[in-house]
Amino acid sequence: MMQTMQQVVTIAELRQHLKEARRQGKRVGLVPTMGYLHEGHLSLVNEAKKHCEIVVMSIFVNPLQFGPNEDFDRYPRDMERDLKMAASAGVDFVFSPSVGEMYPQQVKTNVSVSGVSEPLCGRSRPGHFDGVATVVLKLFQIVQPDYAFFGQKDAQQVAVVEQMVRDLSVPVTIIPCPIVREADGVAMSSRNVYLSAEERKQAAVLYRSLQLAEKKVASGADLDSVRDEMIRTIEAEPLADIDYVELLRYPDLTKPEAPEKGDRVLIALAVRFGKTRLIDNVIVTV
Amino acid sequence: MMQTMQQVVTIAELRQHLKEARRQGKRVGLVPTMGYLHEGHLSLVNEAKKHCEIVVMSIFVNPLQFGPNEDFDRYPRDMERDLKMAASAGVDFVFSPSVGEMYPQQVKTNVSVSGVSEPLCGRSRPGHFDGVATVVLKLFQIVQPDYAFFGQKDAQQVAVVEQMVRDLSVPVTIIPCPIVREADGVAMSSRNVYLSAEERKQAAVLYRSLQLAEKKVASGADLDSVRDEMIRTIEAEPLADIDYVELLRYPDLTKPEAPEKGDRVLIALAVRFGKTRLIDNVIVTV
Repeated sequence: MMQTMQQVVTIAELRQHLKEARRQGKRVGLVPTMGYLHEGHLSLVNEAKKHCEIVVMSIFVNPLQFGPNEDFDRYPRDMERDLKMAASAGVDFVFSPSVGEMYPQQVKTNVSVSGVSEPLCGRSRPGHFDGVATVVLKLFQIVQPDYAFFGQKDAQQVAVVEQMVRDLSVPVTIIPCPIVREADGVAMSSRNVYLSAEERKQAAVLYRSLQLAEKKVASGADLDSVRDEMIRTIEAEPLADIDYVELLRYPDLTKPEAPEKGDRVLIALAVRFGKTRLIDNVIVTV
Repeated sequence: MMQTMQQVVTIAELRQHLKEARRQGKRVGLVPTMGYLHEGHLSLVNEAKKHCEIVVMSIFVNPLQFGPNEDFDRYPRDMERDLKMAASAGVDFVFSPSVGEMYPQQVKTNVSVSGVSEPLCGRSRPGHFDGVATVVLKLFQIVQPDYAFFGQKDAQQVAVVEQMVRDLSVPVTIIPCPIVREADGVAMSSRNVYLSAEERKQAAVLYRSLQLAEKKVASGADLDSVRDEMIRTIEAEPLADIDYVELLRYPDLTKPEAPEKGDRVLIALAVRFGKTRLIDNVIVTV
């Protein structure tokens, strides 16, 4: 029998449902999202269904992880569409709390992860990963999932969450899932809707530059020269405005002198097209 | 049948035991301590046994909450004695991990609670409450207790932990327990063993000054003048060296202009006798 999906908006109600599921010995998986779902999110649900009898998707645009001049207010939202997509994908509970339900008073508690939070998006978006760590830890306390599923597109986020889980012994297994791409290689992202037709077309350069770099790094090229070549490739597109292009050891996100055999290298970039900031990455084993 | 107490030193083994207990529907209570037990700790166990079928006492001198010039190394330890006392009090599991078990790598994750962490001991001991919040949250992730029991002697610690639990929706109920005192009013503390006979005798002034202040505040006296009188009282003891004496609204620990009817006021002090820093407090409802 097909169980109908339920939307739950309060912490108390969600806990009540999950308590019952847990009593029945069911494993609970959490797919944390900010909504405006795409194939990337659905691939997380798909993976979650392999590990868990109960899949909870949270949909919450978390103000803590947006800077004062970022796109919190205009971040795309469409709950009705999200609920349909989540139901088709086989989600059991959509947890979509209001900001007031998640943060009834001003939040005084801050969770920060030094080291991995600092380079890349941490440098461009001060406080972003504190906001991420804090809300993810709170979602873990609310849902108490056995597994949680995160997209590798946010590779640094995965590294931050994994470090936090290890440091605090949070009883959850983190499952990073591969990036899902459009036909031309552009990584699926809710923010892609911001792009004009011309920006969207030129955005294909990001994955082209990553593929190029991937080959060179795998065959032992010098990381600085690979980085230079990526920058030249991206800058050939007139609308591309580079925030960063970096090659770092994964998952500790330190800058390797020269990577050693067996090291994983994260090739990561953030590039603006007009007002829209896109990120993408690949991880290569040297 | 009397169940024998077990000492457990690894996170994995403790979780295994508690999983079994939880499957049987038993409620789990956590009494976090740094060991060198006294009647204060045992009163927490006593309270825990009223709420829970399983009582876990953690014994862990947490390096994160000690400053570089504080007493981490000389903090009193006596595991053999602690185990006997815990067993007599009816503890089910003593969880006494090594530092390496709790922090196998350098901890990168820091939990901080702004506001309540800042005055009083937060000012005297920079980073102390970050260390407390981080280890308590980690213990909560390890034990997943239904209830956790904290002594009111560390009133600010209680306020910090309660704020963190609320902010992060940690599924635990915090039960603060009254201060246990010696015959002359000195609050029980593992650090009392540091005191010389003369220091120990003069330390009785702390509770005398608190009792005096309690009466005055309850009858509406001006908080600044009460504070002045406490300071004069304490300074009459030649070995007493005041770190702070403060009267703050509880539990937000802000300085009240004038407390309103129904407000709770925390009267708190930290005083050194030789190398030993003692803290004590009372909470008065105006």
